[in-house]
Amino acid sequence: MHIMNRILAALFAMLSFTSIGYAADSLPSWNDGAAKQAIVKFVERVTREGASDFVPVPERIATFDNDGTLWAEQPLYFQIFFALDRVKTLAPQHPEWTTQEPFASLLKGDVKGALAGGEKAIAEIMMTTHSGMTTEEFDKVVKDWIATARHPVSKQPFTSMIYQPMLELLEYLRANGFKTFIVSGGGIEFMRPWTEKVYGIPPEQVVGTSGGLKYELQDGKPALVKLPTLVHNDDKEGKPVGIQRHIGRRPIAAFGNSDGDLQMLLWTCIADGPRFCLYVHHTDAAREWAYDRESHIGKLDKGLDEAKARGWTVVSIKDDWKKVFAYQ
Amino acid sequence: MHIMNRILAALFAMLSFTSIGYAADSLPSWNDGAAKQAIVKFVERVTREGASDFVPVPERIATFDNDGTLWAEQPLYFQIFFALDRVKTLAPQHPEWTTQEPFASLLKGDVKGALAGGEKAIAEIMMTTHSGMTTEEFDKVVKDWIATARHPVSKQPFTSMIYQPMLELLEYLRANGFKTFIVSGGGIEFMRPWTEKVYGIPPEQVVGTSGGLKYELQDGKPALVKLPTLVHNDDKEGKPVGIQRHIGRRPIAAFGNSDGDLQMLLWTCIADGPRFCLYVHHTDAAREWAYDRESHIGKLDKGLDEAKARGWTVVSIKDDWKKVFAYQ
Repeated sequence: MHIMNRILAALFAMLSFTSIGYAADSLPSWNDGAAKQAIVKFVERVTREGASDFVPVPERIATFDNDGTLWAEQPLYFQIFFALDRVKTLAPQHPEWTTQEPFASLLKGDVKGALAGGEKAIAEIMMTTHSGMTTEEFDKVVKDWIATARHPVSKQPFTSMIYQPMLELLEYLRANGFKTFIVSGGGIEFMRPWTEKVYGIPPEQVVGTSGGLKYELQDGKPALVKLPTLVHNDDKEGKPVGIQRHIGRRPIAAFGNSDGDLQMLLWTCIADGPRFCLYVHHTDAAREWAYDRESHIGKLDKGLDEAKARGWTVVSIKDDWKKVFAYQ
Repeated sequence: MHIMNRILAALFAMLSFTSIGYAADSLPSWNDGAAKQAIVKFVERVTREGASDFVPVPERIATFDNDGTLWAEQPLYFQIFFALDRVKTLAPQHPEWTTQEPFASLLKGDVKGALAGGEKAIAEIMMTTHSGMTTEEFDKVVKDWIATARHPVSKQPFTSMIYQPMLELLEYLRANGFKTFIVSGGGIEFMRPWTEKVYGIPPEQVVGTSGGLKYELQDGKPALVKLPTLVHNDDKEGKPVGIQRHIGRRPIAAFGNSDGDLQMLLWTCIADGPRFCLYVHHTDAAREWAYDRESHIGKLDKGLDEAKARGWTVVSIKDDWKKVFAYQ
């Protein structure tokens, strides 16, 4: 962010302490229901200087899941489409794939058959397509893909599949002195090349699933080579661990959409002081997708029960969001 | 940092573009030699809007080693004194230590004997004293220790053993839009409890050696328990790896004092665009310590040769620093 923008954002945040109208206008894609009111009330509570619930700026840490929380995740996590495209690109260098599963099915266009191998097959596809090159090479591959690939249903660029209300929420929180982080099961190096441009979240505020890295000299120049090993699985119990490793302090607000986010929300909200936890509930089959307890992707079951029991905010996309995607 | 300070810092940074006088005054503990001039010249070069070497604010990443670069590291890394004090505190719960090395020697006050076991003995002391409790409990233990423990030679609190010129440098860089990170071989959770107060570096900008963490429910509340395992050794080749994991982009400036920092400096400075690498050379036996090629701690040998060959800035504490510690 340009330094002038930072100054303006900070000044704006100060002015906002006295202006509820500003807060309401910051979330124009949200209907004026209980979810929006809970968000605004929380932000006003922790930013009112001198009040008992005031939280100093450095402690205003907010963590967001990505898939299903900031952008869509149907019909498959978008990173899987990236990996499938990589398999096609890399196939000429791997003649053995024509007979070797899960690659053989993939190359015949049979995605379902390839993924029939379950988590093991997916892990093999991910490892193979996300390693064997330097971090800089991978960064370029991701940037090229994200600039050109299209979502199979909407035919939009994947970065158009981000939720407009959540983008407004990120900006509203930052304008109020929050530092916004992504804490996602997605690959950390798959997200970082575009999160700053798309969400305003710089690479150092992205926490994700991480593979091994090897430092080596290539023609006398240091390089970091991506290894086909899993170093940190940033899902479920891995989310609080990832938060501790990267951020080193407990968030005061956390946002998710699935059971994979439950531990992050518990870690955030079962602690002293003012806390805010929110689940995005996918209830809109017309404008997005409708799924929860039985879904293969982004299953929200225990989380829905915990949210009810603990009084967390649950956003119903159908009822709470005026707009889902900016392109609609 | 309070929001008002952030605004003032940002405004100050903008004003500083046109004022060399300001830059000079920001580093009052530096003598006006080649090192100080190189720093100021680099900062002016990358912050001059419209110039070919201009670097946008989000890319102004600066990484600092801690031991021997931001604070002293003699006669032993300060974290080892912490660990030794922990052994004494924990001894009543470990009757077996009275006969078990390296603990038996330590408890008899024979530090030299205990450390005779070399890296294995040190690793055992570190693992034992840095695990078996939650991250929140450990945070409190470190805060209590750092508030009360004294350096064995100076008799000052350890946080008074920070280098005043480096503190000024951190602030000068931040006033010019840099984000300052610690990238240290020290334990990440040993540093984070005090780096914000002492250096103005928040926990999320501290990268260090990390142990295993286990998420579990304790009386229904989530907790992260520190395990006696090594997950990341943030030294030598581990520094660029730690930078990539935590920051996700290459620094444009890096500061170290030993061969353990060499890979970080190479990673930073062998890349396109304006870059700045600096070694602190411990040359002042009167005000601090004098050591380099033969030292057991903070050995600077290859690094000194590389610095010369590559034209990096080498700070001679004796010649370049007007003041070393604020208390002197």
